[in-house]
Amino acid sequence: MQKIQAWGAAAAGTPLAPMIIERREPGLHDVVLDVLFCGVCHSDIHQARDEWSGGVFPMVPGHEVVGRVARLGSGVTKFKVGDIAGVGCMVDSCRTCGPCKEDLEQFCQEGNAPTYNGTEMDRKTPTYGGYSSQLVVDERFALRIPAGMDPAAAAPLLCAGITTYSPLRQSGCKPGDRVGVVGLGGLGHMAVKLAASMGAQVTVLSTSSGKEADARRLGATDFVVTKDAESFQRLAGRLDLLIDTVSAPHDYNAYLGLLRPRGTMAIVGAPATASPLHPFSLILGGKRLLGSIIGGIAETQEMLDHCARHGIASDIEVIPIQKINEAYERVLKSDVRYRFVIDMASLKG
Amino acid sequence: MQKIQAWGAAAAGTPLAPMIIERREPGLHDVVLDVLFCGVCHSDIHQARDEWSGGVFPMVPGHEVVGRVARLGSGVTKFKVGDIAGVGCMVDSCRTCGPCKEDLEQFCQEGNAPTYNGTEMDRKTPTYGGYSSQLVVDERFALRIPAGMDPAAAAPLLCAGITTYSPLRQSGCKPGDRVGVVGLGGLGHMAVKLAASMGAQVTVLSTSSGKEADARRLGATDFVVTKDAESFQRLAGRLDLLIDTVSAPHDYNAYLGLLRPRGTMAIVGAPATASPLHPFSLILGGKRLLGSIIGGIAETQEMLDHCARHGIASDIEVIPIQKINEAYERVLKSDVRYRFVIDMASLKG
Repeated sequence: MQKIQAWGAAAAGTPLAPMIIERREPGLHDVVLDVLFCGVCHSDIHQARDEWSGGVFPMVPGHEVVGRVARLGSGVTKFKVGDIAGVGCMVDSCRTCGPCKEDLEQFCQEGNAPTYNGTEMDRKTPTYGGYSSQLVVDERFALRIPAGMDPAAAAPLLCAGITTYSPLRQSGCKPGDRVGVVGLGGLGHMAVKLAASMGAQVTVLSTSSGKEADARRLGATDFVVTKDAESFQRLAGRLDLLIDTVSAPHDYNAYLGLLRPRGTMAIVGAPATASPLHPFSLILGGKRLLGSIIGGIAETQEMLDHCARHGIASDIEVIPIQKINEAYERVLKSDVRYRFVIDMASLKG
Repeated sequence: MQKIQAWGAAAAGTPLAPMIIERREPGLHDVVLDVLFCGVCHSDIHQARDEWSGGVFPMVPGHEVVGRVARLGSGVTKFKVGDIAGVGCMVDSCRTCGPCKEDLEQFCQEGNAPTYNGTEMDRKTPTYGGYSSQLVVDERFALRIPAGMDPAAAAPLLCAGITTYSPLRQSGCKPGDRVGVVGLGGLGHMAVKLAASMGAQVTVLSTSSGKEADARRLGATDFVVTKDAESFQRLAGRLDLLIDTVSAPHDYNAYLGLLRPRGTMAIVGAPATASPLHPFSLILGGKRLLGSIIGGIAETQEMLDHCARHGIASDIEVIPIQKINEAYERVLKSDVRYRFVIDMASLKG
């Protein structure tokens, strides 16, 4: 084992602080990454504060990780030393169940190994995330970051990017489709860029009129303030697809009313409580409501390659690790456009 | 115009009684059907009693109509005199909007012409359903009843059949799929037969343990009483598809828990009130919830042809029209296995 530098929460809810963790020596198929950048996902905060309970402490958050391959096991074929690689929300899975064989490792029937706040598949060794100087991962769960992509702006693609890319693909988003994006935050801003890159006409629906200029800059051609009933009415029955990124409870029925017959609404924001669903909201127009969570490894690679082809990455604010607790407070106030990314060089500073 | 015999409700909630209505002379593309049989759908009762409000009275219900072609317009090419033809829930639509061009006339943007309790596309001429001696319809909205199919048992296919066939097809039901059918009534019994005919392994989920023998006879290989928590647990994460035919409010989250990752639950029963939907019920397994209502004309014909190939029709109890008010009471008590069909010869009796 190797001792390496990291930042994490010693116990539920304590501020993040420097700590030393252990990583395994690389096995036959492992790559060792020198972490360059790590994105800050809202779920890092929920978990570090144990708001979902069951947290494994000490906890080193971070599942939007981009690093440089420093060393590798002799069986590694996908990477060479010096390559830029990424790690998202998973570092392993059973690899043999139905979902794993269908490239849906996020739904591994054994339960996959999360990048942090869990264990490796041995169910014993704790996993630690990307707020650290190095990360060791099986090459199958490491992604190739395409040449020329800014490694800092690429980091949030590993969670926010795939979370919005997957439902767009599942719904067959194509040129000319009218796509609504509900909420313009870390997920929403990626949904706008990705839908626009697929040729869709994008409408942003936001509670905040102050985000219109940003929405248009990101690729939207229409903007609706959700409190404005008239604009809402104007869109009724017009959208092919809605990507709902809002994590506060809201009225799904109202949004389903914006879809054309057989249209799809994809929920990727995760309100903690139930909302009333009226069956007629789905039945009368033969509409579909789907939930989606990240994507499999193959689809994540596809997303990265798509982003490289279209020159897309996340809009970010780079911070040193020493500002992480402050950044968490700003995330809670939606005071970031649109994702904090930690420059891990600061760990040595 | 021609005066013809029918049974209907003179006003909201009055018992059904004989009445005389007018039908148009057949136009260039019209067929005139001598109605042989008409199914009794639960929605006939809702509408005759104006429980959905806005009912058009006098009202002649009936949208599961099978008849013999008696006369036809000179432009009719799809039928000849003596053919057996069917009419479902629609008798016309705008034919030019997006959904109509996609064979989804049930979602016509202008609003289609319902078989009863509405008007023709002129928005003036009231439509009257199949509890009548004759029906006049444009050939495009008449279905071919395949040779050899029992016309009485075929009638319910025009609503209950297509309502359950369409979501099975939309979800790509295929041999070996594990399909759950929630509720074993008019819709549910067709869902079981149709899913089994597509090669699926069918589980019926019912509140009533007394329906197990019927479920197995109809083609199910498994049966779960929904109050039995243990059996419910046994099915967790195992089903590919659920067809939910229950029209009383119930907990969608519990049923979504029975689906495998990326599984689909189709709602075809229509509870009048909203139920709480927990977003995590959809997100965690990447699950899909869709609403479905009847099907387009082309898909309805496909369903009839499928049923003929597989020797499927509805399980029915044939009644004379004089028993219709009694039959309505029995439908409300779920005292029918599984669909009443009126023998319209009784109209002359």
